[in-house]
This record gives sequence, structure tokens and C-alpha cells, in this order.
Amino acid sequence: MRRIGMLTSGGDCQALNATMRGVAKVLYNKLDDVEILGFMDGYRGLMHNDYRVMRPSDFSGILTMGGTILGSSRQPFKKMRVIEADGLDKVAAMKKTYRELGLECLVILGGNGSQKTANLLMEEGMNVVSLPKTIDNDIYGTDMTFGFQSAADIATNAIDCIHTTAASHGRVFIVEVMGHKVGWLTLHAGIAGGADIILLPEIPYDLDCVLAAIERRHKAGKRFSILAVAEGAISKEDAQLSKKEYNKKIASSPYPSISYELGAKIEEAIGREVRITVPGHTQRGGGPDPYDRFISSRLGAAAGRLVVERKYGRMVAFDGFEVVNVSLNSVAGKLKYVDPKGAAIQEAKDMGICFGDE
Amino acid sequence: MRRIGMLTSGGDCQALNATMRGVAKVLYNKLDDVEILGFMDGYRGLMHNDYRVMRPSDFSGILTMGGTILGSSRQPFKKMRVIEADGLDKVAAMKKTYRELGLECLVILGGNGSQKTANLLMEEGMNVVSLPKTIDNDIYGTDMTFGFQSAADIATNAIDCIHTTAASHGRVFIVEVMGHKVGWLTLHAGIAGGADIILLPEIPYDLDCVLAAIERRHKAGKRFSILAVAEGAISKEDAQLSKKEYNKKIASSPYPSISYELGAKIEEAIGREVRITVPGHTQRGGGPDPYDRFISSRLGAAAGRLVVERKYGRMVAFDGFEVVNVSLNSVAGKLKYVDPKGAAIQEAKDMGICFGDE
Amino acid sequence: MRRIGMLTSGGDCQALNATMRGVAKVLYNKLDDVEILGFMDGYRGLMHNDYRVMRPSDFSGILTMGGTILGSSRQPFKKMRVIEADGLDKVAAMKKTYRELGLECLVILGGNGSQKTANLLMEEGMNVVSLPKTIDNDIYGTDMTFGFQSAADIATNAIDCIHTTAASHGRVFIVEVMGHKVGWLTLHAGIAGGADIILLPEIPYDLDCVLAAIERRHKAGKRFSILAVAEGAISKEDAQLSKKEYNKKIASSPYPSISYELGAKIEEAIGREVRITVPGHTQRGGGPDPYDRFISSRLGAAAGRLVVERKYGRMVAFDGFEVVNVSLNSVAGKLKYVDPKGAAIQEAKDMGICFGDE
Amino acid sequence: MRRIGMLTSGGDCQALNATMRGVAKVLYNKLDDVEILGFMDGYRGLMHNDYRVMRPSDFSGILTMGGTILGSSRQPFKKMRVIEADGLDKVAAMKKTYRELGLECLVILGGNGSQKTANLLMEEGMNVVSLPKTIDNDIYGTDMTFGFQSAADIATNAIDCIHTTAASHGRVFIVEVMGHKVGWLTLHAGIAGGADIILLPEIPYDLDCVLAAIERRHKAGKRFSILAVAEGAISKEDAQLSKKEYNKKIASSPYPSISYELGAKIEEAIGREVRITVPGHTQRGGGPDPYDRFISSRLGAAAGRLVVERKYGRMVAFDGFEVVNVSLNSVAGKLKYVDPKGAAIQEAKDMGICFGDE
Repeated sequence: MRRIGMLTSGGDCQALNATMRGVAKVLYNKLDDVEILGFMDGYRGLMHNDYRVMRPSDFSGILTMGGTILGSSRQPFKKMRVIEADGLDKVAAMKKTYRELGLECLVILGGNGSQKTANLLMEEGMNVVSLPKTIDNDIYGTDMTFGFQSAADIATNAIDCIHTTAASHGRVFIVEVMGHKVGWLTLHAGIAGGADIILLPEIPYDLDCVLAAIERRHKAGKRFSILAVAEGAISKEDAQLSKKEYNKKIASSPYPSISYELGAKIEEAIGREVRITVPGHTQRGGGPDPYDRFISSRLGAAAGRLVVERKYGRMVAFDGFEVVNVSLNSVAGKLKYVDPKGAAIQEAKDMGICFGDE
Repeated sequence: MRRIGMLTSGGDCQALNATMRGVAKVLYNKLDDVEILGFMDGYRGLMHNDYRVMRPSDFSGILTMGGTILGSSRQPFKKMRVIEADGLDKVAAMKKTYRELGLECLVILGGNGSQKTANLLMEEGMNVVSLPKTIDNDIYGTDMTFGFQSAADIATNAIDCIHTTAASHGRVFIVEVMGHKVGWLTLHAGIAGGADIILLPEIPYDLDCVLAAIERRHKAGKRFSILAVAEGAISKEDAQLSKKEYNKKIASSPYPSISYELGAKIEEAIGREVRITVPGHTQRGGGPDPYDRFISSRLGAAAGRLVVERKYGRMVAFDGFEVVNVSLNSVAGKLKYVDPKGAAIQEAKDMGICFGDE
Repeated sequence: MRRIGMLTSGGDCQALNATMRGVAKVLYNKLDDVEILGFMDGYRGLMHNDYRVMRPSDFSGILTMGGTILGSSRQPFKKMRVIEADGLDKVAAMKKTYRELGLECLVILGGNGSQKTANLLMEEGMNVVSLPKTIDNDIYGTDMTFGFQSAADIATNAIDCIHTTAASHGRVFIVEVMGHKVGWLTLHAGIAGGADIILLPEIPYDLDCVLAAIERRHKAGKRFSILAVAEGAISKEDAQLSKKEYNKKIASSPYPSISYELGAKIEEAIGREVRITVPGHTQRGGGPDPYDRFISSRLGAAAGRLVVERKYGRMVAFDGFEVVNVSLNSVAGKLKYVDPKGAAIQEAKDMGICFGDE
Repeated sequence: MRRIGMLTSGGDCQALNATMRGVAKVLYNKLDDVEILGFMDGYRGLMHNDYRVMRPSDFSGILTMGGTILGSSRQPFKKMRVIEADGLDKVAAMKKTYRELGLECLVILGGNGSQKTANLLMEEGMNVVSLPKTIDNDIYGTDMTFGFQSAADIATNAIDCIHTTAASHGRVFIVEVMGHKVGWLTLHAGIAGGADIILLPEIPYDLDCVLAAIERRHKAGKRFSILAVAEGAISKEDAQLSKKEYNKKIASSPYPSISYELGAKIEEAIGREVRITVPGHTQRGGGPDPYDRFISSRLGAAAGRLVVERKYGRMVAFDGFEVVNVSLNSVAGKLKYVDPKGAAIQEAKDMGICFGDE
């Protein structure tokens, strides 16, 4: 019998269940004798030998279900090597579980941090197949991650809702979009939602450019302006700071987030009310959209095939519309950024969207 | 020719356009010679003689459209009688516009404040038919307002999204729901979203009850708890304060809203992370749902019929599932609250939902 | 220990699970010692002693889930008294199960036929609490049934989709809406979807009126017309037929449904293409909308309370926005029709919507 | 002044307006002096000199709007060269309009037939930039067309709805999906919707394989089976027929579509009820989803840039996630099929999905 471990790690997102279903369907379909162990709450379950034996029926009906049936937890890589206060050597503990249970491999669904950990486990001698999970779409080595489009839908819908109220009342509105250190989600939601100004971490903004864009619209008789602002957006001044200085500045800021600070500055400059909306955690919640259900089924199935064929140390990925797989150690620890000079940005600028840099 | 003025006043909401379409279709259909003047931005347009002559085509295709094609503005009744800094007597200015344009009546879509103003205009000799617009459902004299269910949909969807992420990570989550001083929106979204704890302005809460409910779930092995908290929710202690004292307390609070304060207290008490999500203005945005499109068409048509029959001084309303009309001066200025002893609350309590009072 | 049977009968609809959850939560919350037995596939399970013992966790997470976790089957009342080919006396068989299992009562979620059967079981000495389930909203004694609004959403969305394509191509489109012998679903979806012509079973239509309405729009320069046609719509001529004659006519019709026959006649008369869309079974599928989740939770909780208090022979119901309960034998076997002279029809006619009768 | 013609041709789809908005925003933004003429109802407007001068405001607020503000019509290429009954030489008529209006180029949004016509116009000396519009995703030279994902959403949602009712009642259900002669839409919706059996035009099916798949599920205790069947699906026997023979067979079939014929055969073979659902034209209706709004904005902007730079004879396209452009005459008249040996099919088969061929 082949015994396969499975876990979901990091912030939850849509299509985690759909992806696991894809993996499981292939394993049950192609292997005569297989057992899937699901570790609870990501690497925590692997560390503490907390798992349940999955049955085929556990994967039924979960294609459309949000969240993860296995639970998840954030387990930052940087602390992986550290011995915990209670004396636990995390990596050793995971290795022990892996060995004792006689696992043949681990199927790991995770974002950037989790991919790094997956790579570390591989280096420690465990077999790993990983899948690119994140609403941020920032995983190096794949053109698309599952969860991203569903999150983009929610962020876009938030902008849509704000659009009608902004238009009715003639207001400046900021919608703060998730995405961590990268701008993919804001870029897609901003364009799809018809935002007038889009601020991304990859393109530090100049407040004067932003104000000028708002004033241009105002003078052209447009009643409102909508800004899609990434939670990681940064001004040109702040981009000059060292990471330490910047973190210090943020820590002492009276504003809950960058959007509130920006909003206050705009309000002061233009003398008109600016409203802030933060869809927040709703962006990673709810069920996956049909796009994500399609791509996650494909990624899951491709990962299942890798397990069947014992091709380990790989992350399944999209190269354009094709599912491929890449070596885990070539991608772990690298971020995929929006290219400020890329075609998407250029097209958006051609349409008159302001990115705060010119 | 009969010349009818129309305006939308107060915070925008879903189905404003659908409602106006209902009114206009009846006017164009039943009257041979009618002209509709649409005042821009609510009472502001009436005050400043800012209007456009509507054509039948202006009302085409707007059934599903969010916001208001006429724009809106908040114009609190309490300042209505005050002469403005620029010497403008607001009521006199509106009366002047009404007379000069030879209006036969005003069709006014508005919430509580706007109904009060509508009543005032009536007392000043203008003919008025009004319609109950608000996502808060707090207008006295009608069982249902348009906009409410669409807003409840959005708030419920926010809770749904939080549900999956809360369940995956095992967290306590607060979703702050709009509704001003009343709890209808939170009650409906909370029950529809399966919230474990629902806090309403009408039922001041005891923090210990809330904590006990969270702990009961925790001990029963539930990984998470979701609180639907009205933006106007209030603790038992705060409910003892005078309005002045309470406003002072709020003004000096370091928290952006009640939810953040509550979240901090819960976090401190239970020693586990509490997350806050505030869907905010998205709740009044986007297009109306089919329910709202149905009831707003009915209300609009009934208001149109009142105009046709020259029955003025009335607000159209729902009595159960029947459309009726009530005298404007009998409802203006009164709020409709959730009854803490009512059947809906009792049913929710029977299901084990905690309202923080027992 | 109190042992309660539960079953879902008839065509499935949205919010069956949400309703059962409401019942179960109250039973588990208010009773110290209770066991719920879920009969599989409606009355079939009760007849054949096919059930499973439900656990509280079975009712977790099903608030948003479509279909029914217990399965359903159609079991028409009229054959209830008949001894089956295999010698099974249905009613006796159900009674036997009820007695042998020591059930204290049955909680029955069903439509018209199922309510009749529920009443019959009551007359046979079983304790029954029933809940009004149907997308048709045709159950006598309640202003609203669960499932109805979610189905109306789907039918309305279908009309919305057709709207854009009809407008783009300048076509006449028929959307056939479910509803069995009554017109509620078509009326609500038709008004919410902005249909130009609405044909209901309760208002037999005159083809010439329908054609005249289409031509009026055509002459007014409207590019398209949309008809919302109830699956039970009937022409004035056909309404003259005896039931037997009509069924014979239908049986020998070359058309799959009334819409296709009507479409062919319109096409022939106006010389322009007419397209038919039949959303069909999708209307009873998918998860419940927030409205249905709210009302079904309330109905379920109220039914749970009846069980707790041993008030049997009742159906929970809506009287306006209030949850009440009515005696089962006063409502079983009666249909609730759209009133052709009612306010909703009058309002729609005032708006210029054609019902084919004038 | 540069004068640009624009038209939308063929069956309407989602994101036509979003795409035109993208083009227009770039033209207005990058060119000092530009005028856009919108031809009504596709090539018909160009033939009959029926157009309106567009204003920038015509393109405002249409990002989310379904259908096409210019109207559309089907104008099959194969008849393009034919002189019409009324003596009209179509191509000459279009050329005349083009010349007389002093157009500099035509921006054409269309599917396969329309691309062929666009290419013909180019060969006749007109300047053309085209955009790949179709819910079928069958345009050669681009990895993705706008409209496709929104249609996939609707088809997937239909399968979702059927899923709950099929599961509740234990039925075999066929959902017939659009897509003309290609299977993209059915493949994506089928996988995203969790269909058990997917039948595509590119993979002629063997009825016995289909029956065997249904029986396998039945024996495994699954209560239901869902088939996603392309409107162009074909059996192995029928695939042997000449096109003429096949068309003759279809013309004399008593069934409205392939699904009904297949359903009848399955029903006869398995002795259990089979239900058919045909979402039909709803699949091309309603507003575009966020994915389509993003890609259509990009495609539109890229087309606008081609016009600005006077690069004619090109179709904008997706190569993976990159927007490129290809020469119109290299793609016109070619279809892009699903590869029966491709990775997506293999992954689906690995998951146990039956395509009726093995």
C-alpha cells in the first residue's frame, strides 16, 4: 500500500478543497492500494502527528466548498530551524512523523512560505509534490495560482459596489485590496473594476501624481474617482527608507493601514471627503469561482499524476494555459512581481489609468 | 400638462433606479401629458433649481442598475430651518423652485431624515408622494424598505466568506454590519449567515455573556465563532450613559468603530486572536437583487398611481406582502426598531444564537 | 428520550437543509435528551423503515447547501390509499415504522401534495409538524414558502441574461418559468426581470392581446420584447376545455411545452424570429439565497419550538412578516393562487406590462 | 482628424462593451483629434451606412454591461460575395460606406465568421484591427477569447444547480452546453462543475462507454450522474457520416437537440429517468465576469494602441497570459479545437471523468 500525506498550509484561500479533490480523485482512480492521510492545520499537524485517514467520500462534494477541510495555519519558514521554547525541533518532529507513518510522499498546498518549507523538507529527505496556493499570485515559476481569480472577483465586486455609491454621491473612494507585497490582485481587480487610479507595491507612487489625476477627473466633470490601492502600496518617499526604518514608521503610524494614511492626505489636499473601504479577509473566503475550480482541478490532477509516477520534488504550475511542473528548489523562496514595464501596465496607462508614477 | 418633480435623497442604496422606473412607467403609461423633472443630488437640486427634464428613455435599462441616476446628497432635517451662512433659507428656496417650475407634486425617495423633510415640504403647501428608501429598514409605517434585502445579501455574503476562513484557521471573527441606530440588517444577515453571536443596538450586550458564548463553543470543540455586530451595537454600560456622554466617549476612543473596541476586549479576555471585517459602504452599493427589484417596482408603481390620482401627502409602504399607503405626517420622524421580545429574536435564541443579554 | 422523525418530501428546493438545521438546532438546544431520525427519500424512507440516526454535526455547515441531505422523492397523495402491486399498504407501512421506532412526532418538509399526506398521517394518529417547502409559493395558509425567492432569483437572472442578448439582436424571447399550476414565480421573476409580457395560469391569455403588445413595442422603436411565461400558462381557448380534453390536447402536441407552441404562433404572426429559453430544473437547484436562509431558519426554529412544546398538527407559516402556525387540516389540499384582481397585478398593468387579457 | 469605424458582429457575448470601452479609452487618451463612428448591428450598419457618432460618454459605465451598445447581427461570410436579391453587392456597399465616410480603419469585434469577413475587407483595401469575441473560444491564433469565461460561469452554475437536485432525487441529468462545433465551453464547465461524463465534438462518443460509466457510478452507490454534453457532441456512428448525411439525419430527428436523443437512449438502456436541461441563450447573456472584464480591457487597449500606431491587418490575441497581435489573414477561417490528446483531457481522464471514448 502507498501511503500519501496531504496538508494545506498558510493563509486559506478558495479552491483548496477543489485542488485536494483533484489530487485524491487521481490517486484513488489510478492506484489500486493507496491511503491518504490528511494532516490537520498544515505543518502543525505534521509536526505533532495530528492527522486523519481520509476516505474517498471525504473528497466528495467539496469542489465548490471554500476554506480547507484539513484546516490550515501560518508557519513561517524563517522560524523552521529554530528549536521551540518547549524544546521541539520542528523539522526533526516532521521527519519523525513522516518516517513513523511510513509516508511515501507529502502533497503540500501552500503559498510562498509554505513552498520554502516544502523545499526544506525535500532537502531533509522527504518526498514532496507541491501546489501553488495563494490569492496573491506571487509564486515564482507559475503564471497562475489557484485562489487568485476568486479573490479578484471579490475585490472587483467590492469596487463595483463602491462605484455606484461613489457615482451617486460624487466622492473619492479608496478600495484597499489584498496581495501582500505584490500587486497582482490590485492590478486585476483595479482594471476589472474600472478604477481610475491603481497603486501597486511594484510602482512607488508620488502623491502629487495621484492628486493631479483626481483633479483632472474633477475638472473634466467626473463626479467621482476610485482608487484601487494594494495593501502593500508604498510612496516614493517611503520606498527610499530601509526596511527597518519603514517598519518603524508603520508601527508608529496612527492609521490602521496605508489606505487610511493616503486617504487623509488626499482629503487634506483636495478639501473633499475621501472614503475608505477594506474588503479584508472576505477576499480569501467563500467558494472558488468556476475559473479556479477548473484550474485547481487541473493542477490537482497533475499533482496526483506526479505522485502516481513517483516524480517528486516538483511543483505543478501553469505555463500560459498549459499545466507543467517545475523543480521545487528552483522556485522556493522567490517572489513573482508585477513588471512595471510590462504590457498589462502599459495597456492600462494607455487607457488613462494612473499608477501614481507619471 | 402635469409636471412632476422627482428626487432621491440621503445615502444611496440599491433599487433607487428601479423604483424611479416604476413611478415613471406608470406616469407615462397612464397620463397623456406629463413631464418629469429630475432634481440633481436630492434636496440640493430642489434648493438650487438644478434639474434635468427626463425622457422616457432615461428610465430604460435602469431596473438592474445600482446607485441613482439623479445623484443624492445628505441633507439633515434638523438644519432645514436654519438660514445658511450664505443667507439661503433652504425651505423658502425649495418652495420657490417648486412654484416657479409650476410643479404639481414631488416624488421623493428617501430614508428617515428625508421623510421628515418631505413632511415639512408638505406642511409648506407642496404636494408630496414619498417612497421608503433605506438599507436600514428603519422607516416607521412600512414592514419593508427597498434596498434592505440587497444590503442584507452583501452583508450575508461577507459573513459567508469569513465563515470559510474562520473555520480553516479556527478564529474568532467579527463582521461589522451597517444599519445606523437599528439592528434589522445585522439581524437578517446574522441569521442568514449563521452567525453565532449577534449584537444589536436594541439589545445592549453584556461582555461576559459574549465571552461565555465564545467559550461554550470553544469547549464544545467548535474551531471558530462568528459575531455579527451592528455598527450601532452598544454595551450595557454604555447604554447607561447620556447621549452626550456616549458621544464624548466615542469621540475619544482610539478604535475606528465599536467592533474594534469589542474585538480588543475579547482578544484580551480569551487570549486568542480576534479579526475584524467591515464591509462598509459596499453594503449600499451594486445593483438590486431580484427581491428588491420586485418590491421596488411595486412601490414605484403604487406611488405613480397616487400621483395619477392626485392623492398627496402619502408614503407608499408594505403591510405584510401588501402594498398600501400611509399618511406622511403619521410616519415622518419615527424609527422602526427591532423588538427585543419579538418572535424573530426568540426563534434565534431558541436556535442557540447569543444576543449578549443572557 | 424524545425521538423525532424528520423527512423532506416532493421536488427538492433551496433551503431544505437550512430549514432542517433550524429545527435541529432548537431541538438540540432546548431538549436535554432528544434523538432525530432522518428518513431517506421522503415518505419512501418512512414506508420502508430506511433512516439514519442524525448527529448534531450532520446539521453543521448545511445552512448554505442546496438540495437535501436526506434525499427526497415524489409520492403523490392520491395514490396513498392504494395498496401497491407488491401488496404494500403505504399508510399502514408508515404507521408501522412510526410505532416500531417509538417516534414521538414527524417533522415534515413538503409542498402541497406532501402536506396532504402529512395531514393524512395525522388523521391516522401520528403527531406531525410540517413546514411549507416549495419554489411555487402555492401553499395555502402561508404568505411565503422557503425556496421560492431563491428560485425567483434564478428565473430572474435567466431573464436578465436573455435581456442583453435580446437587446443586442433585436429579438422576441420567451423565458419559460416554473411554478406548476400557479403563477407566483413567473409574476415575481417577470416583474423583477423587467419582462414586457407576463403570462400566468391564473389569467388565461388571448393571443391577439399578446401580439398587439409586441407590435406596440415594435412600433415604439423597441428592438425586442421579452415574455415571461409560466409553465402552466394557458390560452383563453384552452381554458374553456375540460381538464380531460386539455390533457389530451397537450399529450398530442408536437411542442415540448406551452412556450414552444406560443413561440411558433407568435413567429408565424409577426414574421420575425422568436427564441425560447427554459431554465428548467436549475430553478430548484443551487444554494438558498440570504432571504431564504433567513426565513427558513425562522420557520425551522418555530417548528422546533412546536415540537418542544408538543403542539402537533400544525404547519408553520408566514402571516406577513410574522411567523405563525396554522392547523394542518385547514390548509392541506388547498392551493394559493395569484389573485388576477390583486394589487400586484394592477401595479404591473399600470406599468404597462401585458398579461394577455386586455 | 482621424475617423475610426467600430462594429460588433455575430452572436452577442459578454464583454463586448468592456472591450469597446478599452479601445475607445486609448483612442481618446492617445489621439488629440479622433472620431469614432459606431456602426449599428454589425456589418449590416456598414453595408447600409447606418451609424452613430460616438461620444466619450457613450463608453462610460459600460464596463459591466452585457450585450453590445451597437447591436449585432449574424452575417455569414459564405454569402458575403453573393449579390443580394435586392441587387446589393455587400462588399461593394461596405467599401462605399468606408470611402464616403473617410474612415481610416475599422475596429471589428467578432467571432470566426466575422474574422473571415474582416479579412475579406482587408483584402479589399480597408484597414482593419480585429478582436477575438466568442463564448466558444474557438478562434485560431489566440489562447483565449473574451466572453468565454463568463459563459463558462453560467454553464457551470447551471451544472451546480442541477447537482443539488440530481443528488437529492438520485437522477441522471444531462446539461447541454453551447460551443458550436468545439468543446471548450463544455470542457471547462464540465470540469468546473464536477460533471461525471463530458461529451465533446472533438471526441466522438460510444454510447456503451457512456452507459458503462453511469453503471459504474450506480454500482458504487452514487445516487446520480451528471453529463455535460456539448451542443455539437457526436456519436462515433454519426461521426462516420458525411456532413450531408449527418445534416439530413439531424433535420429528420424528432429530438430538439442531441441531448434529448442521447437522454432517450440512456433512459431506455438503464431503465431510470434521465432529465435534460438546456441553459441555451442565457450562456451568452448578462454582464461579463471580472476575468472577462480584465482580459477584454487589455485586448481592447492593445487594439486601440494598434490603431494609434496605424498597425493594420492584425487581430489582438492572447499568447498565454501575454497580449500579442497576429496577422489577420493567418488566422481567419481557421478553428481552434480541443486537443483530444492534450493535457487537460488527460488530467480529466486521470480524475475518472468519462469522455465516452474508452
